[in-house]
Amino acid sequence: MVILGLDPGLGTTGWGLIHAEGNRLRHVANGQIKTETTMPLPRRLANLFDALGEVIRTERPETAAAEEVLGNSNAQSTLKLGQARGVVLLAAATAGLVIGEYHPSVVKKAVVGTGGAEKRQIQAMVGHLLPGVKLAGPDAADALAVAITHAHHLASRDGMMRRATVMAGGR
Amino acid sequence: MVILGLDPGLGTTGWGLIHAEGNRLRHVANGQIKTETTMPLPRRLANLFDALGEVIRTERPETAAAEEVLGNSNAQSTLKLGQARGVVLLAAATAGLVIGEYHPSVVKKAVVGTGGAEKRQIQAMVGHLLPGVKLAGPDAADALAVAITHAHHLASRDGMMRRATVMAGGR
Repeated sequence: MVILGLDPGLGTTGWGLIHAEGNRLRHVANGQIKTETTMPLPRRLANLFDALGEVIRTERPETAAAEEVLGNSNAQSTLKLGQARGVVLLAAATAGLVIGEYHPSVVKKAVVGTGGAEKRQIQAMVGHLLPGVKLAGPDAADALAVAITHAHHLASRDGMMRRATVMAGGR
Repeated sequence: MVILGLDPGLGTTGWGLIHAEGNRLRHVANGQIKTETTMPLPRRLANLFDALGEVIRTERPETAAAEEVLGNSNAQSTLKLGQARGVVLLAAATAGLVIGEYHPSVVKKAVVGTGGAEKRQIQAMVGHLLPGVKLAGPDAADALAVAITHAHHLASRDGMMRRATVMAGGR
């Protein structure tokens, strides 16, 4: 299964694709979509939407995942992030993808093993879990981290379902 | 010229269309798009995008306008609003519309005459400026108010350009 991880932002949106078979992971592609700060906001959002749509059409992921966002006390930056995130989620939804959402601490725990991990630790572990990966940047690393989290989540869910089936008599 | 005014929100997005010839205004249509709170966020955003796209395809506005948003200290509600606003601006941008953005105080001043007007005053003035209008709700009224603001702005800009042309010798 090919999983698309997303780290939305108005200036830079990170994306990362991995192939997952149970807990076996393989890097497929990653990148960062940047929008021009000099452009009007609606145009920036349209460019982000188009560029992400192009990634989805080219790479044909089967499912997607994004970090939950908490926002912060700076209303203007929260608003900017929200506008970009809305467009990113829309791009995935209009492509028919179901999107898993994970709290940042869940992503850190899944990738590094502790909910309080730092950005650098995440990047190092993404490199370790996806041997040979060349990271387009920190936002692409975060996108791959949430894709890895989604893969773990799906694998443990499938594992639980298989165990439940065995316990129910192999049906 | 047909102007589309927009008042974005995740739960309810107001829209309003007016026909403007200089300062002569006529109501065309208004409505409110609601999304189901029980649905996953990406699905709600997709439904909002589709419904607004349908309005634009049906009514064929030539330009659009939305209130600038300030956000507030509640990061979660600012984030929700941002996500809806991103999708609303995208729907207008992908339809090729240029979107004017106006500070709420500018909208109030244009419609009521004072920057500190209350919601009820805005609704009353929208009814007065667009005789015969039946408002779908308060968000539709706000959308019509920003459309009226845009009409005034375009009319005064055109007026200034005409005057400048006359002063330059009629070219």
